Amino acid sequence: VPVPEASGERLRRQLAFIDEIDRLKRVLRRNVVSDRSRRENSAEHSWHLALMVLCLAEHAAEPVDLGRAMAMALVHDLVEIDAGDTFVHASYDEHEKLERESAAAERIFGLLPGDQALELRELWLDFERGQSPESKLVRMVDRLQPVLLHRATDGVVWQEHGVRRSQVERRVGEIEQDAPALWPLVQHILAEAVARGQLKDE
Amino acid sequence: VPVPEASGERLRRQLAFIDEIDRLKRVLRRNVVSDRSRRENSAEHSWHLALMVLCLAEHAAEPVDLGRAMAMALVHDLVEIDAGDTFVHASYDEHEKLERESAAAERIFGLLPGDQALELRELWLDFERGQSPESKLVRMVDRLQPVLLHRATDGVVWQEHGVRRSQVERRVGEIEQDAPALWPLVQHILAEAVARGQLKDE
Repeated sequence: VPVPEASGERLRRQLAFIDEIDRLKRVLRRNVVSDRSRRENSAEHSWHLALMVLCLAEHAAEPVDLGRAMAMALVHDLVEIDAGDTFVHASYDEHEKLERESAAAERIFGLLPGDQALELRELWLDFERGQSPESKLVRMVDRLQPVLLHRATDGVVWQEHGVRRSQVERRVGEIEQDAPALWPLVQHILAEAVARGQLKDE
Repeated sequence: VPVPEASGERLRRQLAFIDEIDRLKRVLRRNVVSDRSRRENSAEHSWHLALMVLCLAEHAAEPVDLGRAMAMALVHDLVEIDAGDTFVHASYDEHEKLERESAAAERIFGLLPGDQALELRELWLDFERGQSPESKLVRMVDRLQPVLLHRATDGVVWQEHGVRRSQVERRVGEIEQDAPALWPLVQHILAEAVARGQLKDE
């Protein structure tokens, strides 16, 4: 259903983007929500991250622009609408993944008016590069959130996929530099999961 | 599973809040997601609103603090974890609803350290009061988002509940003042839905 002509091209493009991104609610991640009733989707995951940014920003190693970090958490997974979610502990072609996601960013952010398309694509790129204080914070919560959910669900997904502690440590390792105050917590959670047989240790 | 003592009381409270809010992913709204496969939950709805804030802020009648408005969109429905979602076109006791939601805000935001509990509860209260520029923007997108989803799904939920155009107009009426540029669009969508028999007109 097209938006009426009278609304103007700019608003028309904004609404096309808003309609399109609803599809992120159908992209499923590997982890489950806290009552284990179903897999988590990438839209609600992004909501959770944005709120974690708000609550945990004080633990970041560098000062961050909170508004920018929240916006980054909101858009960081939008490319999955075209490119799908890649399970972090699966083996995949890094180059091929990047190509797929770049094309997705081009198309999805390109629905917006030019200035906004540029701004949001830049936010996504910044997240991917992981160099700015905001991207370090968002990457940190993006790594921490599934660990917290695995803990809350007795590691059912870790067990199902036979995940090893070393795999998780490789994935979350950035936390040690980017939010040192949280690192003992992460280590504690992983040690506990190993002790309970939820995570393989070899 | 308690967080290790060494993490400190402040971090322990932040994580208790982050664990608890996962439950918003299980609060279901009346409207469906765009492929009609299931009802939308309040967490992914809040994500959608926060991104709409980012895209549509320029249409607000007054200038807004974008970071504050995004944060408000992220927390505005958290009280539903205890109080449930109230269908906007159902009849309910307004006073009783407010009491339930205030108690929920007390408990849920109260999981956080004192300063953060105060800050987020204040954001929620501001949303409820609807007086600040940020709350007018978030309320506007909160009213617009379901209308866009109803349009994208041929009004299946409007039809199912026999919703009347006058009910929707009462619900979205604030948009005329708070984002006048969007009002013709809303009117167009409602007229079209009536013409197609998706919304009752009497």
